[in-house]
Amino acid sequence: MPNFHAKVFVSLRPSVLDPAGEAAKSAALRLGINGINKLRIGKSIELDITASSEEEAKNSVEVLSDRLLANPVIENWTFELHQSDLDSDI
Amino acid sequence: MPNFHAKVFVSLRPSVLDPAGEAAKSAALRLGINGINKLRIGKSIELDITASSEEEAKNSVEVLSDRLLANPVIENWTFELHQSDLDSDI
Repeated sequence: MPNFHAKVFVSLRPSVLDPAGEAAKSAALRLGINGINKLRIGKSIELDITASSEEEAKNSVEVLSDRLLANPVIENWTFELHQSDLDSDI
Repeated sequence: MPNFHAKVFVSLRPSVLDPAGEAAKSAALRLGINGINKLRIGKSIELDITASSEEEAKNSVEVLSDRLLANPVIENWTFELHQSDLDSDI
């Protein structure tokens, strides 16, 4: 069965506060980096999945993102999926 | 001054264990999703930065990634940077 490599990005919804991001923004100033207007911290999940078709892999990643990796109440998610012939190096 | 939008990806080095990723992999099985071979959880940081040139923005994001967002002992980082005319919606 073909292997697929997926990258899921989970980010806080724009209306949700991000105290960790704000702290990083302040710390950047103390590091001497000026000009940062916004900074938001999210998650990126890389995974390798074996499935019979790209459609099936896509469905699996969608269920995984929506029910396990992200909390849809406060987070949005997107993903990229592509077929990979070899095991990726994650 | 031009605005830039950057996306920084921070991932654990391949030699570093990822217990959270392992837990998510096991939970996926219980959710009925089979076929996941690897799953690693990292961070993605989105930021808007104002800088006089793309070179300067790139340097700032590099310092930020290496000294603040990632722990280079156990984590790798990469980033994408592009000019953005308007404030992004993060």
